[in-house]
Amino acid sequence: MSTAREKLVEELARIVGPKSVISDRHQLMAYECDGYTIQRGLPAAVVFPADTDQVAAVVKYLHREKIPFVPRGAGTGLSGGAIPLHGEVVVNLVRMNRILHIDYENRYAVVQPGVVNRRLSQVVGARGYYYAPDPSSQQACTLGGNIGENAGGPHCLKYGVTTNHVLALEWVLPDGQVVMVGGPNGDDVGYDLRGLFIGTEGTLGIVTRIWVRLLKKQVGVKTILALFDRVEDASRAVSGIIAKGILPGALEMMDRLAMRAVEAGAYPVGYPEDIEAVLLLELDGAAEGLEDQAEDAVKVCKEHGVRDVRVAASEPERTLWWNNRKTAFGAMGNISPDYLVQDGVIPRSTLPDVLARIAEISKDSGLRIANVFHAGDGNLHPLVLFDSGVPGETQRAVETGSRVLQVCADVGGSITGEHGVGLEKMYDMEKIFSPADIEYQLKIRGIWNAEELCNPGKLFPRPAKCIDAKAVAAGRG
Amino acid sequence: MSTAREKLVEELARIVGPKSVISDRHQLMAYECDGYTIQRGLPAAVVFPADTDQVAAVVKYLHREKIPFVPRGAGTGLSGGAIPLHGEVVVNLVRMNRILHIDYENRYAVVQPGVVNRRLSQVVGARGYYYAPDPSSQQACTLGGNIGENAGGPHCLKYGVTTNHVLALEWVLPDGQVVMVGGPNGDDVGYDLRGLFIGTEGTLGIVTRIWVRLLKKQVGVKTILALFDRVEDASRAVSGIIAKGILPGALEMMDRLAMRAVEAGAYPVGYPEDIEAVLLLELDGAAEGLEDQAEDAVKVCKEHGVRDVRVAASEPERTLWWNNRKTAFGAMGNISPDYLVQDGVIPRSTLPDVLARIAEISKDSGLRIANVFHAGDGNLHPLVLFDSGVPGETQRAVETGSRVLQVCADVGGSITGEHGVGLEKMYDMEKIFSPADIEYQLKIRGIWNAEELCNPGKLFPRPAKCIDAKAVAAGRG
Repeated sequence: MSTAREKLVEELARIVGPKSVISDRHQLMAYECDGYTIQRGLPAAVVFPADTDQVAAVVKYLHREKIPFVPRGAGTGLSGGAIPLHGEVVVNLVRMNRILHIDYENRYAVVQPGVVNRRLSQVVGARGYYYAPDPSSQQACTLGGNIGENAGGPHCLKYGVTTNHVLALEWVLPDGQVVMVGGPNGDDVGYDLRGLFIGTEGTLGIVTRIWVRLLKKQVGVKTILALFDRVEDASRAVSGIIAKGILPGALEMMDRLAMRAVEAGAYPVGYPEDIEAVLLLELDGAAEGLEDQAEDAVKVCKEHGVRDVRVAASEPERTLWWNNRKTAFGAMGNISPDYLVQDGVIPRSTLPDVLARIAEISKDSGLRIANVFHAGDGNLHPLVLFDSGVPGETQRAVETGSRVLQVCADVGGSITGEHGVGLEKMYDMEKIFSPADIEYQLKIRGIWNAEELCNPGKLFPRPAKCIDAKAVAAGRG
Repeated sequence: MSTAREKLVEELARIVGPKSVISDRHQLMAYECDGYTIQRGLPAAVVFPADTDQVAAVVKYLHREKIPFVPRGAGTGLSGGAIPLHGEVVVNLVRMNRILHIDYENRYAVVQPGVVNRRLSQVVGARGYYYAPDPSSQQACTLGGNIGENAGGPHCLKYGVTTNHVLALEWVLPDGQVVMVGGPNGDDVGYDLRGLFIGTEGTLGIVTRIWVRLLKKQVGVKTILALFDRVEDASRAVSGIIAKGILPGALEMMDRLAMRAVEAGAYPVGYPEDIEAVLLLELDGAAEGLEDQAEDAVKVCKEHGVRDVRVAASEPERTLWWNNRKTAFGAMGNISPDYLVQDGVIPRSTLPDVLARIAEISKDSGLRIANVFHAGDGNLHPLVLFDSGVPGETQRAVETGSRVLQVCADVGGSITGEHGVGLEKMYDMEKIFSPADIEYQLKIRGIWNAEELCNPGKLFPRPAKCIDAKAVAAGRG
């Protein structure tokens, strides 16, 4: 095997240059997992192509030699989509980090997949523009990774997810062919392959160029923080605000345990310790219209027994509130050795009921569950806290997360809102899809990735279920 | 053949009842064409199922007997997608016209495919909601047809097209199986079959239930009419308004010839005869913010040499301006015996150049071309005026339209913005897609519609090009 591996590394180096291939075992370990840490795998090699031609040449070579590979951006994904579980070659796009073209008049930018999400908004920000989808990892995650996961963020309630902001893609198919899908002018002809490719988690190829919409920054912003004694009241306030016809740019909620974690972190807001829920609501738009909307939102909170509600008095205060919220996942480290982020979707009106059922699951499993979520669009992020040092607890956390997802599916929701399926939720797919539904998706995969060389064993459940279940059980627990 | 046809009618009647099948030749003639009148075909029968079970039973029967069929809504499509060119059975969904459920709290409605677009907005309008995509045919066209064509409308500049407003679909596959794609809560799991099915023009099956988003009506609206002496000035004003960061709800333009037509129609506005272009711009949002935006827009118009610009003084005035614009296609009948609506997309900034090239094509072909378009998103609707009574003129109009599309493709645009491909533009697909691009789409079709029984011979070019070219030539000319 070592000879085959040497040949592989040599061939890859021939295409991208020897400095752009990693084959040293210690260096490879940095690519064993992504933001999902329950499963791991050491890649055969990591290759860093510099442009579309190099990506195409690498993929052509791997395809010819029948060597499986996994595309990777910044590795911030939360469902394991970039993990080389079976020793695949990792094709890392981070070197392709150039903003190629900005067309302000027609309001789009052309970028390489390794451009960091936040950076694009910073660059066009000088001219008053931004790129809308804003995952919490936006300081690190790449736009290519966002395409793979169809990433969302707090502001997707009002502005939509990645697919709503991508006009066209240059794409290397799993056999190395380069194609263009969509059109920079938003054309709409034939089958929507642009839409089809977005969110396929690396199973249909590798994106090499992206045409994204630019939005004009809203001139007015009002940010409101509302503290509630009861989770049910906060949930009902969320429904009340939306039902009133207010469409906030973002509408976030955290429960008591989540607040405890963030208050122990770098950006404490000073929440009273005895409140059960905080709502963070942001209104944006023309400055003049916001005053009335803010008053209406405050009124709805008062109708639902809010203890305290206030509008951010300054930009630094607003930034503090957002930093506090955006670091919530990482802040779990302040109150637990390990945590598992779950990601489910529910009808907004079922929030109080679902939260009560999650509390029951927590009690039953003996594991604490903190809740952080995009409450406006019903996208829950329950965080299951556990200690991988305690035998069996990792497995129990995985099972607890799966039970939470079952609740989401039961109320007519879904098993992922924005974190993807990856390795983590392959078998949860069966909670919402029939075998025939999955079969159709596999047929689509078969058009471009019949040999399953490109990100194999991800996204769809496989017959050999027991093998993976065992791998999870053996994980870190 | 008559026996086979009798058997067909008998079998269909057994499923839907005898009153819901049309087989009389004179009655069938109403279904020979849709809004595209250049090609025609008499259907073998027209069947009107009442519910999903009947659609499934009809399709299962047709699939088993290998009888091709064409789904149809109100027949307002402009590219011939609902034409039974080779005598297919027409499956007409207009009887399935019930609004099944409205969930205001979670902001969606569940409708059958035969619900007329406008009616949904009227029904939910009482509670302050509406359905956003508003094709000019919205008084007649059905939501099922909108799904088939991924319909747009004047307001899609700001609010997006059909696919942005559809959460889930119940769908009868070409073999009669019933599936659900997407989720009413906007979930995003696995491959996006919901997005894939929308805009497939009846080639992947028949939609039987639709979950659509409801939007809250904007409280404030400002409508501006701007008259220009030169088309170039109006075009530059469009780019100027967008570049300024104003995102109007709609931004429409008509040229001199189009104005002549609408002024001879039911809703004359009183445009001076010597102006070259009119812009109709609508701002919507919170009432308070609109004043400044309107002032900015007026200022941009003045910077670009507008002759006259004014804000609608009343709701009746606003309605008149919109009626004038929305009846523009039909109004061509006032100035020409026949007309062909074209539908292209161009980068907004190329508008002045493209309009100049269209004027040249008009001069060269000897056919007048009126221009009506969604200028904000660069979606052109040139109307080629002709007289089918003059030998050869129909064919010349078709060729002229195709030359206009070539201009759109040449400047980096596309061959259709919202009217679909249907029969009309099958061969224009080759202007923007490589053979491999088309092959991939055919492979997707092959997953569900391998025998091509469901809307055969539409959307994709076929090898036997000459046959269709001849059919066009023989059309009405």
